[in-house]
Amino acid sequence: MVEHVTENHGVGGSIPPLGTISDLTTPALVLDRSRLEANASRMRAKVQSLGVMLRPHVKTSKSIDVLHVLAGVDAGPITVSTLAEARYFFAHGVTDILYAVGVAAVKLPEIAELIRSGCKLRVILDTVEAAKAVRAFVEAEQVPIEVLIEIDSDGHRAGVAPNDLLLIEIGRSLGPSLVGVMTHAGASYDCRTTAEFEAMAEQERSLTVQAAERLRTAGHPCPIVSVGSTPTVHYSCGFDGVTEVRAGVYAFGDLVQSELGTCTTDDIAIGVLASVIGHNRQHDRVLIDAGFLALSRDRGTAALPIDWGYGAVCDPVSSEIIQDLTVSSTNQEHGIVTARSGEIDFDRFPVGSRVKILPNHACATAAAYDRYFVTEGGEQIVAVWDRVNGW
Amino acid sequence: MVEHVTENHGVGGSIPPLGTISDLTTPALVLDRSRLEANASRMRAKVQSLGVMLRPHVKTSKSIDVLHVLAGVDAGPITVSTLAEARYFFAHGVTDILYAVGVAAVKLPEIAELIRSGCKLRVILDTVEAAKAVRAFVEAEQVPIEVLIEIDSDGHRAGVAPNDLLLIEIGRSLGPSLVGVMTHAGASYDCRTTAEFEAMAEQERSLTVQAAERLRTAGHPCPIVSVGSTPTVHYSCGFDGVTEVRAGVYAFGDLVQSELGTCTTDDIAIGVLASVIGHNRQHDRVLIDAGFLALSRDRGTAALPIDWGYGAVCDPVSSEIIQDLTVSSTNQEHGIVTARSGEIDFDRFPVGSRVKILPNHACATAAAYDRYFVTEGGEQIVAVWDRVNGW
Repeated sequence: MVEHVTENHGVGGSIPPLGTISDLTTPALVLDRSRLEANASRMRAKVQSLGVMLRPHVKTSKSIDVLHVLAGVDAGPITVSTLAEARYFFAHGVTDILYAVGVAAVKLPEIAELIRSGCKLRVILDTVEAAKAVRAFVEAEQVPIEVLIEIDSDGHRAGVAPNDLLLIEIGRSLGPSLVGVMTHAGASYDCRTTAEFEAMAEQERSLTVQAAERLRTAGHPCPIVSVGSTPTVHYSCGFDGVTEVRAGVYAFGDLVQSELGTCTTDDIAIGVLASVIGHNRQHDRVLIDAGFLALSRDRGTAALPIDWGYGAVCDPVSSEIIQDLTVSSTNQEHGIVTARSGEIDFDRFPVGSRVKILPNHACATAAAYDRYFVTEGGEQIVAVWDRVNGW
Repeated sequence: MVEHVTENHGVGGSIPPLGTISDLTTPALVLDRSRLEANASRMRAKVQSLGVMLRPHVKTSKSIDVLHVLAGVDAGPITVSTLAEARYFFAHGVTDILYAVGVAAVKLPEIAELIRSGCKLRVILDTVEAAKAVRAFVEAEQVPIEVLIEIDSDGHRAGVAPNDLLLIEIGRSLGPSLVGVMTHAGASYDCRTTAEFEAMAEQERSLTVQAAERLRTAGHPCPIVSVGSTPTVHYSCGFDGVTEVRAGVYAFGDLVQSELGTCTTDDIAIGVLASVIGHNRQHDRVLIDAGFLALSRDRGTAALPIDWGYGAVCDPVSSEIIQDLTVSSTNQEHGIVTARSGEIDFDRFPVGSRVKILPNHACATAAAYDRYFVTEGGEQIVAVWDRVNGW
């Protein structure tokens, strides 16, 4: 068993002493670096072709080693979803960070501490109340907190509509702290056809640019226009007026993304290694030691063309999906594998053997782990990369 | 903000310097010790009245401090769901541990290490293959691993049926390692009436006792008969032939348990403290900074009489449920609070104010946190207790 977190970036001629995935206890999170690199290249090529800057969202991987593959740079820019991520990445040399969850006043002292330490940490908000709280804090503490106003481009979750009078009121409340606008078209996950995705990407872009223009017309400088989600960036045909795009889950891909067409199942870079711990022949079930804590309870494919249950069952080494099998239900530390056809070939899964489960939602599944066992797609573990969790 | 894990058990006349829940950044997991103590007392009274030993399942709390409240003893017995729990509790002096997930051969070296260090760690299995693997390991390594055969008492998940010939074959394969039988009637979660719960509890008991008797008749000593789930222990009318019962979630209670009648919502001992980060007046939504990582994606109440969404919204101090409100959807770090009636009283939830969210499933929600902020039901934090996660 690999006991400790070991970073091993310089994989050269000699085989590092990290063993193989057969040595791992289960459940364990395995990351295929070759797939990660391919996903990273594809996204970089896409944003380069559209002439826009990529600000990867690290909430998926929460790992400095993954960021190095994604961006190849040390200082950022990145997007984070928690201040724990901000602290971790800043401690690893990343200085250009957007904290893309509406800021709560209780977090301002911690944000100020990071900014005073040299981190260019920006925050977002979408209410006059939050704008006033930030402005009061900035003035009282004399710390320059830069703010983006969150724009509602799809009615999905948060943000102020670009044509809402509130937008100008928030801008006025912020005063010099205002540096831009941002949006996340989460409704892109409801699109099904290429035409729908392209229209959503264009809507995300145009409404956010429109909000920036309204603020500028009202006299507020608004240099940053930040948009993005993995589907809208993937399907976008252009980013006129946008200064940066954000996407996260493209790094790993997952079954939801493959159903949405932003990757294929062969691109999915992480999987949960599990052991077969039981055969229930009476009910045609194979039991594995990966339950809802190991796989997450995400059922993101439930409403998509192929419902993968709690995950797709793969060969642990080749990562080839064993087409008929899914994790159809989970308890805390148990996964129940069944066949869509009903009948399980138990000889294919001896008790004690391994399977790999591809996740519905990579962000949710990875969150249960504090490390990635990194392979190049085979059995050999070439590195162990840490990740940061919590808040 | 409380930065470090501090244990503070001796709360006496002086107020400890841990601050109040208003000082906490969000999301944070808050534990009401008074409710925990009441839940613990109620369960102890129940098992004492039925004359059976309680082996608390620590997979809910994963905290030595919680165990001390539940059991008041240091050495166990306890039930665990991971070897990480076994290592943690053994390091804290607990020696009598049942690892209640079918054992995978890859874990035997780690189990042997714990046993050789003085831990009475027992394992479970339900296949001939696993029995043979354990027996071979025991003989090769000369380490005494004691085994319980898992019995299927409800067709829910795992185990061998008490009347299955396989039972005797597994017993024979195990030889001297066999020390008993165990079951978990997970199907108790599908019961709705007291009569159904009582019948399920009796079924769990009688089938497991029957399995033990079959093994004894076949010449195998079978001293341990272990059964349990929070609902079946709660509703049981008697444990004839049973030597120990296991239950876990009763410690904290949750919305699923309150719907099943094993507790009330006023007994729920944990909640997620969250900040209001946005008002979406157009869609009558309050946004909070607790999403599916902070609350878990468990939807255990979806099929129960009251569907609480992703959690019930409470006053952060009194823990009184604000009846009309639930977290109706979640993203990674966003929770969307809506009213069943449709209309939200936004003035009740100013941006920057706090709410507390009671969990659907305490085991799933607590798993996202590495510590509990402990109160006596008020604002004052009286202790910070750690917990162990991972595998």
